[in-house]
Amino acid sequence: MRRIKILVVGCGAVGAYYGGRLSAGGAEVSAVARTGFETIKKQGFRIKSVSGDFLFKPAQVIKNAADYEGKPDFVLVCAKVLPEINIESLIKPVLSAKTSILLIQNGLGLEAKLKNAFPHNHIIGGVAFICVFRAAPGIVHHTDYGRLRIGSWPKDDDRSKALLIRDIFIKGGVNCEISDDIVRTRWEKLIWNIPFNPLSAITGADTAVILGRDSSLKLVRNIMLEVKSIAEKEGYKIAPGLIDKYLADTLQMRPYKTSMLMDMENGRPIERDALLGAVLETAKAHNIRAPYTEILNEILAMIQKAGENK
Amino acid sequence: MRRIKILVVGCGAVGAYYGGRLSAGGAEVSAVARTGFETIKKQGFRIKSVSGDFLFKPAQVIKNAADYEGKPDFVLVCAKVLPEINIESLIKPVLSAKTSILLIQNGLGLEAKLKNAFPHNHIIGGVAFICVFRAAPGIVHHTDYGRLRIGSWPKDDDRSKALLIRDIFIKGGVNCEISDDIVRTRWEKLIWNIPFNPLSAITGADTAVILGRDSSLKLVRNIMLEVKSIAEKEGYKIAPGLIDKYLADTLQMRPYKTSMLMDMENGRPIERDALLGAVLETAKAHNIRAPYTEILNEILAMIQKAGENK
Repeated sequence: MRRIKILVVGCGAVGAYYGGRLSAGGAEVSAVARTGFETIKKQGFRIKSVSGDFLFKPAQVIKNAADYEGKPDFVLVCAKVLPEINIESLIKPVLSAKTSILLIQNGLGLEAKLKNAFPHNHIIGGVAFICVFRAAPGIVHHTDYGRLRIGSWPKDDDRSKALLIRDIFIKGGVNCEISDDIVRTRWEKLIWNIPFNPLSAITGADTAVILGRDSSLKLVRNIMLEVKSIAEKEGYKIAPGLIDKYLADTLQMRPYKTSMLMDMENGRPIERDALLGAVLETAKAHNIRAPYTEILNEILAMIQKAGENK
Repeated sequence: MRRIKILVVGCGAVGAYYGGRLSAGGAEVSAVARTGFETIKKQGFRIKSVSGDFLFKPAQVIKNAADYEGKPDFVLVCAKVLPEINIESLIKPVLSAKTSILLIQNGLGLEAKLKNAFPHNHIIGGVAFICVFRAAPGIVHHTDYGRLRIGSWPKDDDRSKALLIRDIFIKGGVNCEISDDIVRTRWEKLIWNIPFNPLSAITGADTAVILGRDSSLKLVRNIMLEVKSIAEKEGYKIAPGLIDKYLADTLQMRPYKTSMLMDMENGRPIERDALLGAVLETAKAHNIRAPYTEILNEILAMIQKAGENK
């Protein structure tokens, strides 16, 4: 069987990590990388991982998808979800009708938007549960977790492509499973992200400080319950024990600074709309109140605005 | 009539401003001041005020109330309300049974606590609506407002002392009125303070940024409504138009950094318990939820904790 060709678009920490795993799993993986282009072209990505360090040397390192030689079987989109980034125009030049698009990104409604732009391409949503960050150009630290859930969209679409790439992920060392409903899986991740990402970005606190008082643990639970109730209004059934499990797991893991906090500290844009905006929009559509998500969203916007005014 | 003797305890910006006004109104006003003691003893307080600059030369400048020569008719307490400051022990050495105690402080339950400690002294609560800050030792900037509401506690107590000091305030240029229920007046002030003080301290934003988006204006209104509903549960009737008036007034005033933001920026302790803790305690006593106040309180605590860990 010929090697599957994959192009990673958005080679931050997540893209480099999962791209590297797919490469280790036997695929021919290339990378669109702008930040640190020269370094990455010369030496690839060094991944310092809790499960063992490894090197990811992309087959092609390019600055734009249009520069890709050939046509990939999969485009793996790991770019951040920001109002100023147009994913469709980033990947359009490299697509053929046979290209499948896998999105490992945060947020809601991403698959529907892509399907709308590219109705003939197969769309797979992906949700990563991972602690990973870029330490320097070409250097990525993977400090915990790594679980990946992927699922075709719409959910009753043919699964052969999802199964194919799942097998490459597994061969490359990723705990990857098929989700029977990737949008429900996105909501499950939001239940963790909506409290922890903004609280850490706003306060500078790691997960241990955020959960450090009885009253703050209760707050995080209350925020999670708010997001859960919105997901259920939208028709997604969340497992009853999920919140308890999240809290227990987070208390157990090494104190962790979220990616939103690190983006904030480094003056990088944050995924405010993709996370909080998406949840608030859903709450509004069902005419329910979401005070915790509302105030977290507004506080993040105020911090950004107050920073600009300085 | 002999001059009324007043000792101001806690000569931050508020204490210096109102002490100075009482002095201008004809009272013999002394000051307990530790920060900037030498400067203040030598040259008093220079008050740069929107309503005209003035100098406040206290009759006595002392480091401890116990050093006061004589017995004052009034002790004016303007110290911040912090867990580590024990007001009772600060003022006890200077009290006689005839001394009235006037508290211009934020929070709830302060009058009851003092009455409990000094059952024979007349207690007057005071609530200031003022923008004032200390620019340097002995230098105070008064940038807006200045309205003062005072009321004896319990509210059916004899009002002669409150009327006496009100008249001195008015003579000194303060818009001072008697409140028929100073605890209700405290709640009215909390309805402004609970959104603006924490939001500014957390985000670094001034009042203009805080109210700068339709959605953030709505958030502030929602927070105010939460505090109002707790006050009403507690039995205090809040005027129906108060919130609209607060929002209109705040939109109109010059962009303002709250005292809590300035305390935060200068690494000084903040009145978290006096403001948010007091409201949450009341909500809990009535078994009602207060998500906005809850999350603001926890975020402030996380910022303090994350700061300590650095």
